[in-house]
Amino acid sequence: MANGPGEAVPDGLIEAFWRYDDALLSNDQGTLSALFAPGPHTLRGDGANLLTGHDAITAFRSGRTRIPTRLVESVHARILGEDVALLMARTRDDSAVGLQTQLWQRIDGRWLIVAAHVSLPAASDPFDRSVWRVVGDPLVEATSPGPLNGLRVAVKDLYAVAGQRIGAGVPAWLAEQSVVDTTALAVAALLGAGAEIVGIARTDEFAYSLAGTNVHYGSPPNPAVPGGISGGSSSGPASAVALGQAEIGLGTDPAGSIRVPASYQGLVGIRTTHDAISRDGLLPLAPSFDTVGWLTRDVATSAAVARVLLPDSLLRPHRTMRVPMIEALARADLKLGKTVERLAAADALPPVEHLELAADLLEQWFTAFRTVQGWQAWQAHGAWLSAHPGSLGSDIAGRFAIAARITEAEMTAATEVVAQAREQLTAWLQDTVLVIPSAAGPALSRNATADQVDTERSSTLHMTCLAALCGAPAVSLPVLRSAGNPVGLCLISAPGTDRGLLELAQTVQSAC
Amino acid sequence: MANGPGEAVPDGLIEAFWRYDDALLSNDQGTLSALFAPGPHTLRGDGANLLTGHDAITAFRSGRTRIPTRLVESVHARILGEDVALLMARTRDDSAVGLQTQLWQRIDGRWLIVAAHVSLPAASDPFDRSVWRVVGDPLVEATSPGPLNGLRVAVKDLYAVAGQRIGAGVPAWLAEQSVVDTTALAVAALLGAGAEIVGIARTDEFAYSLAGTNVHYGSPPNPAVPGGISGGSSSGPASAVALGQAEIGLGTDPAGSIRVPASYQGLVGIRTTHDAISRDGLLPLAPSFDTVGWLTRDVATSAAVARVLLPDSLLRPHRTMRVPMIEALARADLKLGKTVERLAAADALPPVEHLELAADLLEQWFTAFRTVQGWQAWQAHGAWLSAHPGSLGSDIAGRFAIAARITEAEMTAATEVVAQAREQLTAWLQDTVLVIPSAAGPALSRNATADQVDTERSSTLHMTCLAALCGAPAVSLPVLRSAGNPVGLCLISAPGTDRGLLELAQTVQSAC
Repeated sequence: MANGPGEAVPDGLIEAFWRYDDALLSNDQGTLSALFAPGPHTLRGDGANLLTGHDAITAFRSGRTRIPTRLVESVHARILGEDVALLMARTRDDSAVGLQTQLWQRIDGRWLIVAAHVSLPAASDPFDRSVWRVVGDPLVEATSPGPLNGLRVAVKDLYAVAGQRIGAGVPAWLAEQSVVDTTALAVAALLGAGAEIVGIARTDEFAYSLAGTNVHYGSPPNPAVPGGISGGSSSGPASAVALGQAEIGLGTDPAGSIRVPASYQGLVGIRTTHDAISRDGLLPLAPSFDTVGWLTRDVATSAAVARVLLPDSLLRPHRTMRVPMIEALARADLKLGKTVERLAAADALPPVEHLELAADLLEQWFTAFRTVQGWQAWQAHGAWLSAHPGSLGSDIAGRFAIAARITEAEMTAATEVVAQAREQLTAWLQDTVLVIPSAAGPALSRNATADQVDTERSSTLHMTCLAALCGAPAVSLPVLRSAGNPVGLCLISAPGTDRGLLELAQTVQSAC
Repeated sequence: MANGPGEAVPDGLIEAFWRYDDALLSNDQGTLSALFAPGPHTLRGDGANLLTGHDAITAFRSGRTRIPTRLVESVHARILGEDVALLMARTRDDSAVGLQTQLWQRIDGRWLIVAAHVSLPAASDPFDRSVWRVVGDPLVEATSPGPLNGLRVAVKDLYAVAGQRIGAGVPAWLAEQSVVDTTALAVAALLGAGAEIVGIARTDEFAYSLAGTNVHYGSPPNPAVPGGISGGSSSGPASAVALGQAEIGLGTDPAGSIRVPASYQGLVGIRTTHDAISRDGLLPLAPSFDTVGWLTRDVATSAAVARVLLPDSLLRPHRTMRVPMIEALARADLKLGKTVERLAAADALPPVEHLELAADLLEQWFTAFRTVQGWQAWQAHGAWLSAHPGSLGSDIAGRFAIAARITEAEMTAATEVVAQAREQLTAWLQDTVLVIPSAAGPALSRNATADQVDTERSSTLHMTCLAALCGAPAVSLPVLRSAGNPVGLCLISAPGTDRGLLELAQTVQSAC
């Protein structure tokens, strides 16, 4: 230990430092917590976050796995008095170095950390494998200049990109794929408008999840909610955009796969009208619901993409629009009521009205949606999955197993309910924009149990299935919060009104 | 500013903090230096380095350009007495957040920083563009298992990789290239031995430099020498290996392009016997000297690659080896003499003898080498360069301009000298391993002037040209130091003895 001029290291400090370091390596959370000073003024920061208060630090730590083993190479001390010292410890593992700065104070005879700043060893991967599969500078150049000049696209690993394979979030699938010759139409259109592809970004396995917790490649980071899941299935494109590594995350949204990660990460996400944009070159999950969409950091960029991918004819002004509320879905702590009040007070917006949607009817629709989606998903992937047992994580494998057992009779009955739902929703959307939360709540912790994730998925699907049921466009706006974390507000309008919906979204965001 | 319980912020501290921050943003080095406490105990660290002492911090800062503009979002204070306080400031720019921790002390009435820890905003690129052009997880899988299983290769952007273009460090060149169908033989051999390609790594423009300072993509980081250049032309593969992002950096070494970055970054580098490994699929610079080679973090990995790429017949024991010194090239502060003493004392090594190499003869060889290399480089790229003026940085453009003016008579005369040099060197190498520094000195600062870089290149080429002149294998070992930074020790043996040379290298490294 190197200390400053004429400074003797006070008794017990070195011992406390090493006790803390041992606890770090063994992830002994009790000891770690005990060695941080109690109270709301204790600080702990790294490159990504600064946490204030003992409780926040303990909560952060509980959501973390053991840190990689590394050596403390040297410790430097600045002794600031009998009871105060700053320690800076240089750490090293196989591939990288790190730095830990700790301000220690002796409080009631015990040495405690009152402030800490950590730089973890740099990853030894050249890029974040949980976000990307392949990246380049760029990976694919724009084919002509255009309105999207300079914008970088993260392409969900479900779209065909010439020279690449489609990985679909499943290593065993990827291993059998050939490089494709032709780029998906939606991707080609972006390249033709000046955008470039920065990389192929991760997806949940076959896009059949809303969590983003791919068992093979890990859960991409959610910079808006440290320790939170990314949301999925367009998990990689969402995180890439949230991290500033792409401006456009091109995804798909059969039942929330864009709106949910947008909601969890504070992004703007749009699912477009079903069949409005060609799905040519897109690996299907459930073709009746699969649709192209994208995530951006702001509405303006989302609208710029819409102008490229959606024909002019789809731009219809919502002259007689109302903004109703689906009471059954509102969560108290989202303060939806307050938001609606603000929307109602905005001159530029149409009047706000409530809309009754009976809980049992919604339940019936949701069940029918899930049945038809499951049936189609099994049609799309059942043969391959049967030939490749064990290639999926247990959550998504379980979902496919249920899908495999859906009978033709169940599917036929569900299809009828879906048709009824479509009729009712389409009627409402003639002169109405539906306003609901984009997800049941904010991003769960990465340590949530499988049951918690499944329950949250089911609640969220009750909301996200509405746009899917009638093939309507839906935009998620980052304007709600729950427990300090972002939740999206979802606007749903009539099929074919995508560009008008994005104009409205801009006004709604300004009013919130 | 948020401070702790009942703590008043002492007078003048906030002002000092903002004065420092303004100076940071304007890169006002005088003010920055004045606000750091003088003396050898002041600390400044980030994720990569911990600097001790005011002088080291000032030197580091002088080698840095202005930091990107960012906002200070919040400042948290822990007041530790009337004259001591810890400040933690959260910063944010367009795409990322950062954290600065500063320990301030009032010394002689002035608030000064005695310790600082900085986490800079994360880059908004998904990977380091100065190191890589394209990366994947992996980019190309192994084609069969083998002795290199699990090792990741960074391929210099001069080799053909099926499905990729060859970029050669020149954007204008890259833009005109087509994707290639066939992978270079050396690369294919690695894939067939179990290694995977993690990515295509940067090179100096057309490999015609030893610095690594590509004007288009930047100088890759040198983790061994903060603020130092990477060395080149195999700059990307070297930094990728040094950063732990690849285990094998596949490069080329016409005249030091592997040995120099190995020397600068503390790596093991080998240039193989000329023509021993096929250059099929490799973009040429000067075919008489171009040769395949690789960088690794240890000799064992380098030897494992050699067993894959070089036939058994090349393994000849160096039974009658001597280890002579070329006095003219030794720099005093490298302590070459000490190293040679240690080698001489090692039982496992042959006796050490000095070898006279007259300075004027070496100068003659060097000039001839440069002439033939320049002539061939212009043959390889002159037509393209003439059609694309302005596509290179001024240093390498200047080098090609000189090459363009070499007359056929000069080339013919130089070729004769090269033949004489080859004869003399080959004779020496019959029973001798030459031992010289791999480079004239350690990595220059990134802020070195073009003149400094050019002078260093010329000195280094006097050493590196020896192996090139006779097509001999040469290994650079990270065993010397100059001013605390690594310099390689270069062992050169007879053509065809590559694998034996690597065995000797292992013994030499153990003895150093």
